[in-house]
Formats: sequence, structure tokens, C-alpha cells
Amino acid sequence: MNNTTTAQPVSAVITSEELLHHWQGHRSLTRRLIVAFPEKEFIEFSIGGMRTASALMEELLHIAGPGVREIATRETIKADFSHAQPKSKTEILKLWDEATEEINHYWAMIPVERFHEEILAFGMYPGTVWSSIFYFVDNEIHHRAQTYVYLRALGIEPPAFYER
Amino acid sequence: MNNTTTAQPVSAVITSEELLHHWQGHRSLTRRLIVAFPEKEFIEFSIGGMRTASALMEELLHIAGPGVREIATRETIKADFSHAQPKSKTEILKLWDEATEEINHYWAMIPVERFHEEILAFGMYPGTVWSSIFYFVDNEIHHRAQTYVYLRALGIEPPAFYER
Repeated sequence: MNNTTTAQPVSAVITSEELLHHWQGHRSLTRRLIVAFPEKEFIEFSIGGMRTASALMEELLHIAGPGVREIATRETIKADFSHAQPKSKTEILKLWDEATEEINHYWAMIPVERFHEEILAFGMYPGTVWSSIFYFVDNEIHHRAQTYVYLRALGIEPPAFYER
Repeated sequence: MNNTTTAQPVSAVITSEELLHHWQGHRSLTRRLIVAFPEKEFIEFSIGGMRTASALMEELLHIAGPGVREIATRETIKADFSHAQPKSKTEILKLWDEATEEINHYWAMIPVERFHEEILAFGMYPGTVWSSIFYFVDNEIHHRAQTYVYLRALGIEPPAFYER
């Protein structure tokens, strides 16, 4: 078609393995951002009436592992975005690492042929497998970026966006 | 492989057309966020020593159109992240709409076979076509989310994240 210089010719925008690696790279950055927060500000600080970093990170945890598990197993998971009790950094980081494993485990059960299948994420959000997963990733970037502003407002240098 | 319910079987995580549509959906949201800013705060307001919304949006404009044009034409474009003179909402929105057309125009010249080609974005950032484009999109979500916090801090309700 034209003189590409690609080493391994892959006729795809992105492979499933690359998308998983891309997301886990983002999740690794988000983890370092959680670590960068002082404990008190993690569960108390916010700007403009927004949710705290603890609550935002808990939302991401309610989505990532359960979202991929639901796609892989086709068993509807009820959306649970509660954060009645603010979670500490230690609790969030433990859940974060468990989610990393859960995502890897269930991702491997989703064949590429399923990415254009129509689904209802959490039994209520219509889309395809790919659009749902992109939403999970985009939503993480979105909320993490807001906590970047929290760190800056607290005078703390956040980890570099481009380091994964 | 298994009993999928997909209407049109596409054996890809995402097609090139879908990725373009996905990004332009994000860009449409970012445009509405620019519109939501008061003029004065757009070029003056920031939190924690960060860049203003005007400067952040100008960075996105330095990346989006030129980045896709460089990939399509293979002609190196020197990174230009200057924003010596803060640009007004009107200026940014005009450039935004021009970039929308530029992205569509040059995107159509990038065959899917090229997405795994190794490139140097802006002559200096190594990656593949897909990883560079994902960076452009992720970076937009990242900086836009920061301006969401600016709007919240100003007491202004931003457009909903999930509406594209």
C-alpha cells in the first residue's frame, strides 16, 4: 500500500494486548498519584465542591475490575458507586493492586471478536465492548487529572503524565 | 469462538474510523467546555501555578492538527508549544474548528496498516502511529479535566463528561 517502516506488520489500529498494556500503564501512573497524596488530604481535600481524591479513586475501582469481569463473564454487575466511608490510601492501594490482577485475569477471557458486541455496562449503560472499555480508561484519565489539580493546589509536584 | 450477539462481526478492537469518531467526540466536548468559560477567566484563571485554560487549549491545538498531518504526510513538524500571547475564546474556537477539518482531512490519508509503524512525533517523541494518536487523545482528556476543576472552582457547572 505504501512504504511503511513497521517491523511487525499488524493490520489493526491496536491489538487487545496493547490496549490492556496501555490501560495498565495509565493505572500504574494513577497508583503513583495516589501515593503522592498526603493521607489527610487524600480523604478530605477537594476544590469547588467536587469529590475527594479518595472518592474519585474509589469510583475508578468500582468500574475497572467489575467492568472487565462483567464483560468477560456476561454476568450483570450492578453499578455501585457508593463511598459511604472514605477509604484510606492503604485501603485504596490494596484494592488497586487486586484490581490490576482482576483486570488481567478477565481481560484474557475476552476474544478480539467480542469488542464490537453490543452490551449494557453495569446492566444499564449501552455501548459496545470497545466503547465501554474506552470509557473506563477515559474516565480514569479524567478523574486522575482532576486530582493532579488537587496536588498542585496543595503545592505537591505530581508524577509526570507521560511516564507510565 | 463463542456466541457473540454482535450485529456486524469486526475482528478488531477498534477501527480507524471509530477511533477518529471517538476523538472528535472528545473534541466536541472540549469545545463546549471552552464555550462554558467566562472570557476573562479563560485567559487569566488558574490553580496552583498551572497554565490557564487558554494556554492548555492552545497546547492541544499545537498537537492535534499538526500531529495528524505529520503522520499522514511524513513531513516532520517541529513541536511548537509557545503561547506568548494568551488567545481569546473566539480565536481558540476558530482554530479548534479548523483543526477539526484538518484532522478529518489527514486522518483519511493514514491507512490502518500504518498504525504500528514506528515514528518520531514532532521529530522527537518515539512511538508508533497508534501510541502517538492515543497520546494526543489522552493528553486532551487530561488537560480538559483540569479545566473542569477550574470551572468548578469558578462556580460554573461544566458540560457532562459522558456527553460527546
